Amino acid sequence: MAIDPGSIFSKLGAFTSDHDSVVSMNLFVALLCACIVIGHLLEENRWMNESITALAIGLCTGVVILLTTGGKSSHLLVFSEDLFFIYLLPPIIFNAGFQVKKKQFFRNFMTIMLFGAVGTLISFGIISSGAKYIFEVLNFHQLDIGDYLAIGAIFSATDSVCTLQVLNQDETPLLYSLVFGEGVVNDATSVVLFNAIQNFDLSHINSSIALQFAGNFLYLFILSTLLGVLTGLLSAYIIRKLYFGRHSTDREVALMILMAYMSYMLAELFYLSGILTVFFCGIVMSHYTWHNVTESSRVTTKHTFATLSFVAEIFIFLYVGMDALDIERWSVVSNSPKISLQFSSILLGLVLIGRAAFVFLLSFLSNLTKKSAHEKVNIRQQVIIWWAGLMRGAVSMALAYNKFALSETKDRKNAFMITSTITVVLFSTVVFGLMTKPLIRLLLPSPKHLVRMASSEPTSPKSFIVPLLGNGQATESNQSVPRPSSLRMLLTTPTNTVHYYWRKFDNGFMRPVFGGRGFVPFVPGSPTDRSNHQWQ
Amino acid sequence: MAIDPGSIFSKLGAFTSDHDSVVSMNLFVALLCACIVIGHLLEENRWMNESITALAIGLCTGVVILLTTGGKSSHLLVFSEDLFFIYLLPPIIFNAGFQVKKKQFFRNFMTIMLFGAVGTLISFGIISSGAKYIFEVLNFHQLDIGDYLAIGAIFSATDSVCTLQVLNQDETPLLYSLVFGEGVVNDATSVVLFNAIQNFDLSHINSSIALQFAGNFLYLFILSTLLGVLTGLLSAYIIRKLYFGRHSTDREVALMILMAYMSYMLAELFYLSGILTVFFCGIVMSHYTWHNVTESSRVTTKHTFATLSFVAEIFIFLYVGMDALDIERWSVVSNSPKISLQFSSILLGLVLIGRAAFVFLLSFLSNLTKKSAHEKVNIRQQVIIWWAGLMRGAVSMALAYNKFALSETKDRKNAFMITSTITVVLFSTVVFGLMTKPLIRLLLPSPKHLVRMASSEPTSPKSFIVPLLGNGQATESNQSVPRPSSLRMLLTTPTNTVHYYWRKFDNGFMRPVFGGRGFVPFVPGSPTDRSNHQWQ
Repeated sequence: MAIDPGSIFSKLGAFTSDHDSVVSMNLFVALLCACIVIGHLLEENRWMNESITALAIGLCTGVVILLTTGGKSSHLLVFSEDLFFIYLLPPIIFNAGFQVKKKQFFRNFMTIMLFGAVGTLISFGIISSGAKYIFEVLNFHQLDIGDYLAIGAIFSATDSVCTLQVLNQDETPLLYSLVFGEGVVNDATSVVLFNAIQNFDLSHINSSIALQFAGNFLYLFILSTLLGVLTGLLSAYIIRKLYFGRHSTDREVALMILMAYMSYMLAELFYLSGILTVFFCGIVMSHYTWHNVTESSRVTTKHTFATLSFVAEIFIFLYVGMDALDIERWSVVSNSPKISLQFSSILLGLVLIGRAAFVFLLSFLSNLTKKSAHEKVNIRQQVIIWWAGLMRGAVSMALAYNKFALSETKDRKNAFMITSTITVVLFSTVVFGLMTKPLIRLLLPSPKHLVRMASSEPTSPKSFIVPLLGNGQATESNQSVPRPSSLRMLLTTPTNTVHYYWRKFDNGFMRPVFGGRGFVPFVPGSPTDRSNHQWQ
Repeated sequence: MAIDPGSIFSKLGAFTSDHDSVVSMNLFVALLCACIVIGHLLEENRWMNESITALAIGLCTGVVILLTTGGKSSHLLVFSEDLFFIYLLPPIIFNAGFQVKKKQFFRNFMTIMLFGAVGTLISFGIISSGAKYIFEVLNFHQLDIGDYLAIGAIFSATDSVCTLQVLNQDETPLLYSLVFGEGVVNDATSVVLFNAIQNFDLSHINSSIALQFAGNFLYLFILSTLLGVLTGLLSAYIIRKLYFGRHSTDREVALMILMAYMSYMLAELFYLSGILTVFFCGIVMSHYTWHNVTESSRVTTKHTFATLSFVAEIFIFLYVGMDALDIERWSVVSNSPKISLQFSSILLGLVLIGRAAFVFLLSFLSNLTKKSAHEKVNIRQQVIIWWAGLMRGAVSMALAYNKFALSETKDRKNAFMITSTITVVLFSTVVFGLMTKPLIRLLLPSPKHLVRMASSEPTSPKSFIVPLLGNGQATESNQSVPRPSSLRMLLTTPTNTVHYYWRKFDNGFMRPVFGGRGFVPFVPGSPTDRSNHQWQ
């Protein structure tokens, strides 16, 4: 009879052995909800965006936890690289590929590749050599050549997540596709570069190793892209052949999500770049697979992918905010705040210069190849491209942890590098991020008339919901009016000729096999047969 | 220059340190896809269902892994209780609550509670005392009283997941709501019972402890339900007040998913029953929150929840299939296959008897309170209720692991209990599962005319897609014709009078505050104002 009712209540029902982790998860989920609600309330604010809100909430929570635990800890969950690279990054990059305006993306494909691959290499070179030169002038000799190269790779990775929230795909399609496409290629390049640096023998660099390195990069890039395209086509083929929607929408949705995820994991399996693979898988899925599923599956997948990506983004920024206050790191650095500040401002300066160098140089080169004036990137747009890619985010953090966090508390050098990375990430996201919206408004006073291109894709996932809710037929026939002119436009430049032959091939062979707009069976009256009439 | 290109390729790009886990995840995701495709191809088969397919694929894969690893291991992932109770079970139970036909569920609420709570206790008593009696007759004295009670709890937990796949909500709404509702309450009761047994001092059981135990159970049940209802209402209130859809569908979807999950985690935090909480949260969300979001959010959430639940189910069965072949356990038992077989058949027999006892007894009692003949549960339906709840699944496995797996390889008794549980789960799922579809067809030759009740809810998530795709208005007006008769029906029995006053309260107070069908702003022309006209 010596049983205390209170203790009984506390023992019944609950299953998890580790109650602390349940408390953490509750708090974290509650914070995610708070970010969504506050982000919604600040929607109209001309300065804020969701990333900054999440960062700020993360910082505040970090302070509260720091105070309640008596300065012992500032974060709720243990952030692992695996969590970031296996669970949070894939949905973000996949969704980016899935929602990207394919026509814009492929029309500017060469420019995007130039900015993403060559630009990142230029930025990497400037930041690495700049850091080496300045740190040695400042008599800070603790870093070796591998560390400088790693710094170059870490700070070359722009935060494409943050960029997406600042630019609007519908208002500035050209800028969006350039900045965003570059961001994805940039992420992949940085990660590949970083891994290469970790594994190559850096004591004697010569031209042969550099050539080998370039070869490897090309090999990785092509194979990763191919893998993504193949997985996407496989999903399209399976769903088209078996026609799941007849029995169950859930099977279609589950299969699309699982195969998208599998493309990323397959790339990891073959030591390829999962980021590139899942991005191209997203593009192929939105071009073929998405058109093979039922109406409700389309709405569901479109919003599910967007939601997953959205939550993953908030998760990352919330965590980065909390993690910024890790007391152990700052206590090592706090003895010499001046050096720490110097470090961070030098790195920020190098980031600014590195990006400026390649954006203006490569824009100039890219403009030389373009004939029509409206396809050239003017100086205002160049400034925006430069500015929108200045933010450093979760990829930089993850790479910095990977390089410097292993023996961190022991080593003063490592504590310096981690805290500098945090400072650069926080400063660039908050300060640069806050200024981006006003800057765009200043440089592009009425973006709708300045940059909007002739045609957008009316049945891409992004704009699908309008014909569903409104009077679909009317919208469709309105939008198909400017088509003939865009057809003429297609034939004026060589890139567009490639695009023209691709569309012929796509309509003649790919769509009949893999489905896609205009080749979906059994859905009479759907607004997707127009592309047929156009090309027949 | 001593760099091997092959090794460079294998080092670039990939990030996960543990390459084995990448291989496992790839295989597991591929198997999930295979289950979906094969399940789809076997859809028309009158014997198979998705659970059995997943179990079979899991078993086959287990054999293959066993052969390739040379008999060392048979599974790809380490199954943890946490994985099951924190990630896989919540979406399944939430979706069940979200998609359940609320009218049927609440009309049969007392019967469901009788079956779920009292029935589980009867079954628990019969299995515990039966096992104790028979095992002692067979001179197997290694189990103590706590073990016997645990066996009772483990084998009282029916597999509501498998049941869902066998019964059809639209064809047999009464049976579905009884069997399924009972399954959820049963799961909760078994888990609560099991925890209580683990924690109570079992050496001296007396009436006072029994009373205390009953009190705790009631306390847990009521508080868990309340928590679920409150979280659901909170989500409805937030989404209604802030009207997220104006800016972003993704925010609505993210918030619904996060708050649903939070209800489960909150219950775990307060040591309540997460299963009950998330089930009632699902019901409230489908009644209020779901009607406050935009059209595309509705389609998305409906299918996302169903898909999550679907994948979690397949995941569980796939794992159970693989895990069944764990070679270590069977090697302990293999010395005495006769005892092992005896054990399993005794437990199977007790499961059959335990369920038969309470289904027929409680159906008789329940029928006494019903006046109209068509509300009574006839003998054919009783047989189906008995049969459909015979399957034992993942909850039994998880409880058995929790009780017997800690010192398993050392202890012969524990190995026996685990292998017996696996045998019972496999046998009941495969054999009983295979026979359920034919049995229902035999007992209910034309279920559409036999069991279908007067009214179903036309705008519940389950049947939402029909008015969306087809001619919505026509369908609606057809279905509202039999309403007056169902109104008269409502007033004939006391339970229905409660229901009538609840609807008055719901329309007068709850819906204006929390939204819900008929109280959604800014969506003119939606088929949801009918309930208004009906009650004004």
